[in-house]
Amino acid sequence: MINFGCIGTGWITASFVDSAQATGKWKLAAVYSRKAETAKDFGAKFDVTAVHTSLEALANDGDIQAVYIASPNSLHHEQAKIILSGKKHVIIEKPATSTVAEFEELHALAKEHGVFLLEANRHIQEINFKILQRNLSRLGAIYGASLTYASYSSRYNNVLAGETPNIFSLEYSGGALVDLGVYPISFAVALFGKPKSQSYSPVIIATGADGGGLITLRYEGFGVVINASKCYTSTAPSEVYGEKGTFVINAVTDIERVTFLDAKSKQKEELAKEKAKLNLQEEAEEFARIIEGGDGEAAKRLEELSRIVIGITTDLRRQCGLVFAVEKS
Amino acid sequence: MINFGCIGTGWITASFVDSAQATGKWKLAAVYSRKAETAKDFGAKFDVTAVHTSLEALANDGDIQAVYIASPNSLHHEQAKIILSGKKHVIIEKPATSTVAEFEELHALAKEHGVFLLEANRHIQEINFKILQRNLSRLGAIYGASLTYASYSSRYNNVLAGETPNIFSLEYSGGALVDLGVYPISFAVALFGKPKSQSYSPVIIATGADGGGLITLRYEGFGVVINASKCYTSTAPSEVYGEKGTFVINAVTDIERVTFLDAKSKQKEELAKEKAKLNLQEEAEEFARIIEGGDGEAAKRLEELSRIVIGITTDLRRQCGLVFAVEKS
Repeated sequence: MINFGCIGTGWITASFVDSAQATGKWKLAAVYSRKAETAKDFGAKFDVTAVHTSLEALANDGDIQAVYIASPNSLHHEQAKIILSGKKHVIIEKPATSTVAEFEELHALAKEHGVFLLEANRHIQEINFKILQRNLSRLGAIYGASLTYASYSSRYNNVLAGETPNIFSLEYSGGALVDLGVYPISFAVALFGKPKSQSYSPVIIATGADGGGLITLRYEGFGVVINASKCYTSTAPSEVYGEKGTFVINAVTDIERVTFLDAKSKQKEELAKEKAKLNLQEEAEEFARIIEGGDGEAAKRLEELSRIVIGITTDLRRQCGLVFAVEKS
Repeated sequence: MINFGCIGTGWITASFVDSAQATGKWKLAAVYSRKAETAKDFGAKFDVTAVHTSLEALANDGDIQAVYIASPNSLHHEQAKIILSGKKHVIIEKPATSTVAEFEELHALAKEHGVFLLEANRHIQEINFKILQRNLSRLGAIYGASLTYASYSSRYNNVLAGETPNIFSLEYSGGALVDLGVYPISFAVALFGKPKSQSYSPVIIATGADGGGLITLRYEGFGVVINASKCYTSTAPSEVYGEKGTFVINAVTDIERVTFLDAKSKQKEELAKEKAKLNLQEEAEEFARIIEGGDGEAAKRLEELSRIVIGITTDLRRQCGLVFAVEKS
């Protein structure tokens, strides 16, 4: 059993706690918030009374071995530094950090203290992603992919009303690319590795951040297009193309259908299995396995994937002039 | 009634003749083929006995006012030159020509002889394309589009067997971009005008031509991605995105559904009407209207659209090193 603390008290944290505890391998044991009241209220949902209003106190809490971080993106780096220095494993929500420099600093710190830093790329731990990955060779030569994650966010209403929610704020290292684009990007990187180059046609919204847009990843012999947005909705499935057929996937997260469409016969074959009931359960299971088993090789592979993804988003933001506040100081 | 001749005796020509005659405004009156037998056989299907094995004879046939050309792409230019010189209107299958120079030469010739040269971009004449076009302003600010025309061609089996069908041959100015990519490209140009720039991630097949791939058109403030292929199949719909919602279209040709999906309410509204029974009927109707009414303005708009499209495909081929035989000589 891994006792863990959490930073962030929103819906995603509640979802992670539920999913993690459902595996039987994690137990929430401490809650951090700047306000004690907020931490207490969140803890009460899970019968947890240990609360911290200081990150150092959380980092030095002897009852926990790990911390899950789901705060605004721009805070990840400072918070993770403190927690890693307390020799706790860190599960950090995507995007792990705002910049490559922050990313490398945190991983160096994790190594120094002998703990794991794991970015919560939950979708690539899903059973149906792994089924797709294992069956990819059925396509023969890869001809490309079209990955879609585009859903109008109710918070975009706030933008249209003149406000700047964190998620659409460059002050908080926000924008659709790093918030949601990282899902299809890491999906592509997990399947095909590092692209040769990339480009982005963003929709720049009133806050100055990107509300969504079209990303192209260029590989040797084929391309991958990604449609990622929080300011418009797409109904399109995601697809991977090859000489022998097409894999049609309902989405890049919460994957429920992995349908092989044979190029010549046009016949369909469904490969998906029933996924975990809670949508962060598969990653919680894998992260517990890595931490309890000390599987440094698996952690290293995930680290390398995260490194490629932040390299891509950093390059795309540079091309488009999307500069975070943290990069200006 | 416009009496017309045809060059090309394949399924697309038969389809055009059926569609054109169904409008009640066109009558097939002569058939050209290099072999008299082939021309006679084709003519017999439509009770037409006038056959020509010489292009000059067709061009000088006093019984016809127009010629429909649906030969291999690389032959369009020479054939159209002869027909236009005989002062006949020309309906030319897409892609009109292999190069921009050929395109400009033909249009200069058409003007010189006082006839129309019309490229058969049938889809933008469809009723449901026009419904989309008229309702585009419902989206508010445009945020992008994803256009799909990707269907595995049985002729790709021949490529895999080591053959080089015309449609996949650079000798015959073939490849997926000019054969089928021009549909979504002209769709985008008809809606949004000329893009600022474009790029292409092609799948280069055994013949050296492009079997398909991903095209990006960059406009001010948004992008359009096009997935066009004859070597793999996509099941995705086409979509146009905006601040107020998404238009979901079943396809970029033979459009049967134009569904408006409201961004905030998520409600759907179907705008499509019943399309013409025969799929080239709407263009045949419009081309008859232009020719009989002498609508030079409408012809000029179509010419300009064709000019932008061939400019785009020429630039994309240049970027990717896809050189036609006609460009080497």
